[in-house]
Amino acid sequence: MAQLQRLAVNPAQICDRKIDLTREQQHYLNRVLRLQAGDRFIAMDGRGHWWSAVLEVRETGLFASIAEEIAVNRELPVEVTLMAALPKGNGFDEVVRQAAELGVASIVPVTSDRTLLKPSSQKVDRWKRIAAEAAEQSERQFVPTILEPVSFDLAVKDCGQKYRFICVARGPNRHLWDCLVGFVPPQFRATTGAPPLQRGEQDGGELSIVIAIGPEGGWTEGEVKRAIEFDFEPVSLGSRILRAVTAPIVALSLVGAAFEKC
Amino acid sequence: MAQLQRLAVNPAQICDRKIDLTREQQHYLNRVLRLQAGDRFIAMDGRGHWWSAVLEVRETGLFASIAEEIAVNRELPVEVTLMAALPKGNGFDEVVRQAAELGVASIVPVTSDRTLLKPSSQKVDRWKRIAAEAAEQSERQFVPTILEPVSFDLAVKDCGQKYRFICVARGPNRHLWDCLVGFVPPQFRATTGAPPLQRGEQDGGELSIVIAIGPEGGWTEGEVKRAIEFDFEPVSLGSRILRAVTAPIVALSLVGAAFEKC
Repeated sequence: MAQLQRLAVNPAQICDRKIDLTREQQHYLNRVLRLQAGDRFIAMDGRGHWWSAVLEVRETGLFASIAEEIAVNRELPVEVTLMAALPKGNGFDEVVRQAAELGVASIVPVTSDRTLLKPSSQKVDRWKRIAAEAAEQSERQFVPTILEPVSFDLAVKDCGQKYRFICVARGPNRHLWDCLVGFVPPQFRATTGAPPLQRGEQDGGELSIVIAIGPEGGWTEGEVKRAIEFDFEPVSLGSRILRAVTAPIVALSLVGAAFEKC
Repeated sequence: MAQLQRLAVNPAQICDRKIDLTREQQHYLNRVLRLQAGDRFIAMDGRGHWWSAVLEVRETGLFASIAEEIAVNRELPVEVTLMAALPKGNGFDEVVRQAAELGVASIVPVTSDRTLLKPSSQKVDRWKRIAAEAAEQSERQFVPTILEPVSFDLAVKDCGQKYRFICVARGPNRHLWDCLVGFVPPQFRATTGAPPLQRGEQDGGELSIVIAIGPEGGWTEGEVKRAIEFDFEPVSLGSRILRAVTAPIVALSLVGAAFEKC
């Protein structure tokens, strides 16, 4: 079977198993992808639903009817928030893109002692677009949420996640891997042949993690101390000194392996 | 103790515990870093040796004398080669940089069925510079080797590594993590309080791995088949569809965690 083309739709566009396509979507399906009436594509609502849809024609233009829901789960069995200090340059675009690829649920951009400048709302909108694009390209069901930038102090204070880690490059801290495998409950552990885990559907409910990654030069000692006061555990990502753009990818790779393989 | 500045030197510059500094290095130490005669810095030869060196002055200019060797090991306890298909754009710069940060020993850029264009020698020189820079910044002892680009077929045929993996995005393959933890021999396993493992110094000698990562769109079926003929095991990197620039970072993150934490 040839692979079907995918289209992100807004849940509000769907009514009675029909998708009311925007003018841009009609153009994209018909002119760009060259789909004809009767052809199929995959409609994704960015909230975990994928449908096989059929393109149909009516007087006012094209619309789509939903044939059936397709069950594909590429989501992590755990809700991971990345709390990341903003770099000075444009490096955050790539952090957002790669974190979205690796299954992050939400990203909190934070200003820190070493990166004080609050980004413009245009930048935040840009990151939202990048997150949506990356989610679509990596065939995720969920589009990660990009939160409004806040100060690190406020972010750690208001943190609602159950398991909290702050990555520290130097010093004798536990490896993130040891912390993760220490608390993966049995119902989250993947077993060969078992159906993919659905986020939030396990016994015991939602499991949420937040991982704080510092700017170039790392968190200041004061920041680490303040995070510890709010139950963050300082952790290491291994023997090597990583850049601020690489550390989030390493952390999320480990979360993926810990929850899908332990 | 304030952190010492680092300088990469060529082993040929060292004779009788003296470092014969080039004009550029003298300028860098004296004018850029503002070091004076009697000040210390760290000299690294890119082959695993770090020395504490003292800047000294003589009639013809500055030189350095070696005070003592410093033992710092940020190297992976295993020799990992990344065999990576070249992307169409400039994405390979970042792959080289991040792979170097994550401890890769060598990178073989390969042309593949989906990326035929052989890069210019300027590009290869550029990657070598990036690898050296990244090794210095991440405080590694070894500068990864960037090999000359070859065809995928030749690369798999001439492959000398003991453990061989080819990453495949779709299909029911074993997770790279399962393969790695399956063969980490006991002498490679880190134990709390033990000295860091030295590459190639364990009982049983050198342990070498090669991981082949495809271009955007992945390896072709033919390529995977040909790799399997040369004892490559097809592996998965998890449930998500990763870009060609992200997959190497995920693979190397898992190697790091498997060898440092299992």
